[in-house]
Amino acid sequence: MVRPTITAFANSPDRGRGLARDMAVRWALEEVGQAYDVELLSFKELKEPAHRARQPFGQIPTYQDGDLTLFESGAIVLRIAESHAGLLPEDGAARARAIAWMFAAKSTVEPVIVEREAAMLMERDKGWYADRLPILDERVRTRLTDLSNRLGQAEWLDGEFSAGDLLMINVLRRPAALTAEYPNLIAYVARGEARPAFKRAFQSQHEVFVAAAATADAQ
Amino acid sequence: MVRPTITAFANSPDRGRGLARDMAVRWALEEVGQAYDVELLSFKELKEPAHRARQPFGQIPTYQDGDLTLFESGAIVLRIAESHAGLLPEDGAARARAIAWMFAAKSTVEPVIVEREAAMLMERDKGWYADRLPILDERVRTRLTDLSNRLGQAEWLDGEFSAGDLLMINVLRRPAALTAEYPNLIAYVARGEARPAFKRAFQSQHEVFVAAAATADAQ
Repeated sequence: MVRPTITAFANSPDRGRGLARDMAVRWALEEVGQAYDVELLSFKELKEPAHRARQPFGQIPTYQDGDLTLFESGAIVLRIAESHAGLLPEDGAARARAIAWMFAAKSTVEPVIVEREAAMLMERDKGWYADRLPILDERVRTRLTDLSNRLGQAEWLDGEFSAGDLLMINVLRRPAALTAEYPNLIAYVARGEARPAFKRAFQSQHEVFVAAAATADAQ
Repeated sequence: MVRPTITAFANSPDRGRGLARDMAVRWALEEVGQAYDVELLSFKELKEPAHRARQPFGQIPTYQDGDLTLFESGAIVLRIAESHAGLLPEDGAARARAIAWMFAAKSTVEPVIVEREAAMLMERDKGWYADRLPILDERVRTRLTDLSNRLGQAEWLDGEFSAGDLLMINVLRRPAALTAEYPNLIAYVARGEARPAFKRAFQSQHEVFVAAAATADAQ
């Protein structure tokens, strides 16, 4: 059987912290026990026609499995979850709710966190930074307060661990996520990171960073 | 057979222009020929526990169909597409690619457009607005240039019209989307808006605005 191939950064900007979007795909593949290959791409290669043919926005990750080429980490995780057992409930209504959490992670929670992160990275030296950061903080808090209230003391967002938890925890791991203010979200992220599949995925992407750093040192 | 019920704004902030997120759900329901009921909510009701039980972030739309309660417009459209014919290809690979476009619309294209819109609405009077707007414009252009290049002169993003086109066109209809710079995206949006199902959905949400405006006038 042919193993699927994913793409990832040859030189991850996060220095191996597992914050790039291949992490969710690796984690999903590890959860379902599907072995995979990784094609590493330079920043230059990301923007070249060969990669854009599979990823119109010149990003990682992509997923190639036989004739199927996919992009968007949310869609790739959903594809993996639909073609293997373990990441979506069998009951139809519970399955639809898990998918709702996937979209909530990617389109309701992630954007405000990425926006705060973008300002912290790119607007730190601007005259407006001190005035604007509290606005961004508040937008993150609005979402995380709601998420924290919904999660309460539950282990996962809706019953068993699902692809919805996987994507949400991946988003909450971002340094700009302000989870420190929400003990139950901290514990939720920690439960995700304690899963053996998460650890294997984290280790795999970390090895890419270590190898790239060693190569750079040797030059 | 019980009709599904969706929630929408009793007083839409867009004055009936079909920019609220119930529009995508209405359009999907019209495309598949599924009749539905609408429960209108005030801004106050959105944040009350009864609504938060079905929508943790206190937003619209939600979707109730028998025992199933869903939130997130992307997930609702996917549910409708999975339980009715007409919005997803039957071939498995083509179906997965259409879902990738759904995630691309909601998590890659929409956030930069919403961010530009938020600044235009809320930062217009700030001292930094003139310096920051070009940065936001450029982020939108980066995404739309890639999208425009991928679409080319095709009618839809990947073969037949799908739920991916539905969500993408819905995002591109936002006033902050800068589509005017991309003739093929303008034509793409126009093809979507010319669909009879789009027109019926637009009319339905517009009638809510007209009725609310008439009630306000009478008071």
